Amino acid sequence: MTTLLDRMRIVMCATSHPGNIGAAARAMNTMGVSQLVLVAPRLFPHEEATARASGATAVLDAVRVVDTLDDALAGCAASIGFSARPREFAGSVLPVRAAAAYALRHAGEGDVALVFGSEMSGLSNDELARCQVIATIATNPHYSSLNVAAAVQLACYELRVAAHGDTVWTAPRFPAASSDEIARLFAHAETTLAGMKFFDPSHPRRLLPRLRRLFARAGLEKEEVNILRGILARVDELIARDA
Amino acid sequence: MTTLLDRMRIVMCATSHPGNIGAAARAMNTMGVSQLVLVAPRLFPHEEATARASGATAVLDAVRVVDTLDDALAGCAASIGFSARPREFAGSVLPVRAAAAYALRHAGEGDVALVFGSEMSGLSNDELARCQVIATIATNPHYSSLNVAAAVQLACYELRVAAHGDTVWTAPRFPAASSDEIARLFAHAETTLAGMKFFDPSHPRRLLPRLRRLFARAGLEKEEVNILRGILARVDELIARDA
Repeated sequence: MTTLLDRMRIVMCATSHPGNIGAAARAMNTMGVSQLVLVAPRLFPHEEATARASGATAVLDAVRVVDTLDDALAGCAASIGFSARPREFAGSVLPVRAAAAYALRHAGEGDVALVFGSEMSGLSNDELARCQVIATIATNPHYSSLNVAAAVQLACYELRVAAHGDTVWTAPRFPAASSDEIARLFAHAETTLAGMKFFDPSHPRRLLPRLRRLFARAGLEKEEVNILRGILARVDELIARDA
Repeated sequence: MTTLLDRMRIVMCATSHPGNIGAAARAMNTMGVSQLVLVAPRLFPHEEATARASGATAVLDAVRVVDTLDDALAGCAASIGFSARPREFAGSVLPVRAAAAYALRHAGEGDVALVFGSEMSGLSNDELARCQVIATIATNPHYSSLNVAAAVQLACYELRVAAHGDTVWTAPRFPAASSDEIARLFAHAETTLAGMKFFDPSHPRRLLPRLRRLFARAGLEKEEVNILRGILARVDELIARDA
């Protein structure tokens, strides 16, 4: 089954460090993005790339190496270039989250390229001019040295969340206590707390409302009501023995 | 000036590879998060940590190393544990984006810990039980091997976007063309296109509406109208010479 993420093509231009290629392959694989195109990498294939890919060999094995950015973009419906630096003639500039949504909107028409520059200098103005959209990633203005594989990680994460949402697993739900069960629990608690002399029924003050608020916030389950009533019953026995 | 991000405390438990500590420090620094606490790291300090930190020495120099998770969480207003695996007794489980919003909401009350487990096994149930919220990161279900420093990167990115938004730089804006200037441009274009015999004014068809639509979508600037009228004027000269 082809998904929208299969349409995404990560393009890395003039990458210097093969470790970054491997780390990018792993980053892509964790997010379900599989097409990697390298434009004139300095060293590839390379053992450091394989090591840092850490088992994401499906991505590395399918890598395409090409000579120019135009080769990398051939057949794409749209392309998005990443740039940390402002550019004078930028047309459409989007934060990576909005750029991911843009990429998915165009995935129905063909592949969409996400283009990353070299470690030292990013994308040139000429390279960016081949992209319809420039994407930015929020960083600390005092230290914006985002590793290129980390940038690929963040972009692929935003693609995955945009394509499939961000719910991974949810808290298990057990049967909720009914209103009657909760009412009986608080009636029992009131009696027991009075029996313990923790609570004077003629001066109720705020104890019971506070307890009701706590348990309302938690959202009581049947099983939890049973546990709490078991604790109260045990206290009742202690009170009876003490009497 | 203390910002909300200064309240965020990244806690890494039992990290095996010092390179991951360095990469996490760099990831934090790029997003403006500075407090790193290591619980019983296997190797630290270590040259690989320093190398991978790539200049994020401010974070590494301020690292605190402690023996237990309880030590790491001391003084925190809230703590959030990261887990890829579903847990039977999980209470509140949030995707990392929602967890980042939760962290910032509690930052007014004190530090907020974001807790990451070891490379091999993540956080234990006992460790997670010390956290009020469990956070999840969306990954490819067929290859969810997210590197721990990459997880720190994504979490810190979500914190930064939640705290400061995700606008980095925007496309430069130049003065927009007025309606009159645009009307004159299209009047000029109509004359020139007719003069070129590209367009028959008695059978207007869809040419002009299509061109109007294109330029409306682009949002014409004054300078662009001048360039386009300059091109039309040059064509007018060619037509005149050809006549």
